[in-house]
Amino acid sequence: MEPIALSAALASFTDLWSPRIVTAVNDYDVRVAKVEGEHVWHVHDHTDEFFLVLDGELHISLREPDGERTVVLPKGSLFTVARGTEHKPYAPIPTEILVLEPTGTLTVGDRHDDVPDHVDATTGHALA
Amino acid sequence: MEPIALSAALASFTDLWSPRIVTAVNDYDVRVAKVEGEHVWHVHDHTDEFFLVLDGELHISLREPDGERTVVLPKGSLFTVARGTEHKPYAPIPTEILVLEPTGTLTVGDRHDDVPDHVDATTGHALA
Repeated sequence: MEPIALSAALASFTDLWSPRIVTAVNDYDVRVAKVEGEHVWHVHDHTDEFFLVLDGELHISLREPDGERTVVLPKGSLFTVARGTEHKPYAPIPTEILVLEPTGTLTVGDRHDDVPDHVDATTGHALA
Repeated sequence: MEPIALSAALASFTDLWSPRIVTAVNDYDVRVAKVEGEHVWHVHDHTDEFFLVLDGELHISLREPDGERTVVLPKGSLFTVARGTEHKPYAPIPTEILVLEPTGTLTVGDRHDDVPDHVDATTGHALA
């Protein structure tokens, strides 16, 4: 492979909540996505999910054993959602994120609320 | 866990070629490192290795079946070194990188040239 510039990868599409796979690392995919507004409550029963905010600001609401909370990730911050934790991402402004999870992981998890039209239920798309 | 700012993580240490583990994702670690100058030729026989350049510029020399080449990663670009590929990172200027690999992966791989004093042979250190 050749090096990939995040800026070029992100410039290659405009869809929101529709991740592109930028590289594979063993049986994991590194994806980038443009997001704004609400995603959907969902849970990955068997895997953690890593988020890095490249630009903008990502909020992730979490339903944890002790109750519900929302973590706020400004640009340049990272967070791992633990497997089995219901969560809902939300971006108050146009935001770009890098996500890491096992290849084949669905954006809406193993269980989820009704998926709104603006959310792409996908295991990630190839870069154009 | 709480969100981690890359800037804070990187401000917490000064050692070169001595990665800090910022989070775990299943049985993988996300590490950040400050690097400058030459690392060492080494190979990971059983795992790919993902690099994202947060600041500066990283060169990675690769010994591939077709010969040796060097890829150049400016700030904001990424690259995955395929398992079994001998490689040597080099940074011409002070550089900050994010690395992803399975927990326990040694910075100098499974086989390597003599490790110079300025290179830390480690599976990553906890954040202070």
